[in-house]
Amino acid sequence: MHKTISQIVDGLVVKALKTWDMIRPGDRVLIGASGGKDSAILARDLALKKAQGRLDADLTALFIRNDFSPDSMSESLAEEYSLWGVPLETLDVHVLGRLKPGRKMNCYWCSTQRRTELIRYAIEHGYTAVALGHHLDDVLETLFMNMLRKAELSTMPPVVNYRKYPLRVIRPLYLVEERQVIELAGSLGLLASTCTCGYNDHSERDRVRDRVEALTQGSSEAKRNLLESLRHVNSEYLP
Amino acid sequence: MHKTISQIVDGLVVKALKTWDMIRPGDRVLIGASGGKDSAILARDLALKKAQGRLDADLTALFIRNDFSPDSMSESLAEEYSLWGVPLETLDVHVLGRLKPGRKMNCYWCSTQRRTELIRYAIEHGYTAVALGHHLDDVLETLFMNMLRKAELSTMPPVVNYRKYPLRVIRPLYLVEERQVIELAGSLGLLASTCTCGYNDHSERDRVRDRVEALTQGSSEAKRNLLESLRHVNSEYLP
Repeated sequence: MHKTISQIVDGLVVKALKTWDMIRPGDRVLIGASGGKDSAILARDLALKKAQGRLDADLTALFIRNDFSPDSMSESLAEEYSLWGVPLETLDVHVLGRLKPGRKMNCYWCSTQRRTELIRYAIEHGYTAVALGHHLDDVLETLFMNMLRKAELSTMPPVVNYRKYPLRVIRPLYLVEERQVIELAGSLGLLASTCTCGYNDHSERDRVRDRVEALTQGSSEAKRNLLESLRHVNSEYLP
Repeated sequence: MHKTISQIVDGLVVKALKTWDMIRPGDRVLIGASGGKDSAILARDLALKKAQGRLDADLTALFIRNDFSPDSMSESLAEEYSLWGVPLETLDVHVLGRLKPGRKMNCYWCSTQRRTELIRYAIEHGYTAVALGHHLDDVLETLFMNMLRKAELSTMPPVVNYRKYPLRVIRPLYLVEERQVIELAGSLGLLASTCTCGYNDHSERDRVRDRVEALTQGSSEAKRNLLESLRHVNSEYLP
């Protein structure tokens, strides 16, 4: 039987949740909601599992509003979160205001600021897990940025456990390709209401993204094999 | 001071020999001589080090002749080996004759046959190391073939120690790029006398080679970082 894109994404999230033991019964999960497609699909998928009695966890989304693109999340997207039964909270973070004199804004720095505040908020409010919307293509991009520029074999892990706090950061879309996120968001009419940040210096990340596409020829199997190879490190056959 | 390509290659081989403890005093080294540029540059570089008193090892080269391109090594290349003071021996291996009925010849199978015979010859004749001419681009190609097709993170290691025999397989050109091998071979007039196998089904390997070029944009720094990243596996940041 032909699976819908929603079912395909659902299955890949189930697999990731199980493989890395991401969400445990009674968890209080804070979803980092950027206003973009990735975190929207993440929230929607977890909400669907919960609505169907397949996920025992509390879900809340936190939208971090900054001072250089100070719009709130689009009203139509906020409506979707309501429909999904995921409470949406907003936190103001003065990203630009924190810049030291002479320093220029960049995506890496901004995302670090927002990540820090998201974690801090989760700890202060007693959440046990922070869920981020990074998908398989993000994981491969980071892998090759680290390999090509830092000469290190590392990427965003599916789960990060904090030692000092009873908190973990999880990435339930770890096995979902961006094309699948886009297809599902499109089929749900979400692409019109999601947005990307107006500020964008993603040029380096975009270049690496193009290179990963060249390496894999856009093949899903090749991408999944690259990811899977990170779980089969054969150190006897490495320098 | 500007270094010559010979000095650059020499330095990279010194670094590999030291990093992976490839050749030990008194070693009897058998060089796998294919008749091509890579093993010729390998033999020439080790012979140069020995002639200058920087390498305490016996050097011999073994050319494995097969039954489908049964020419001997070109006379002019054989002359070079003589000039370098590296005795050149020849072993006949009936690669085609070993094929089971209905099986087709391919590069992978042939190289396995030749490798096996090379190792067997080394053991029978009391060699302590077998030196192969694989270079940095070969290592990266194998890495990505294994990642993309086998979902395994592995490649050709710089040194393989045999458990049953006092023998190791070493790859002294591990840190040398193919473009450097070609530049040095060209400057020594070796490209005219070296050859590549007439039989060639390298299509898959060639495709991966093109993809690695796309990933690195042909940048030496990017290639070296990819290789170096294999020595810095940060398992906390892997799935």
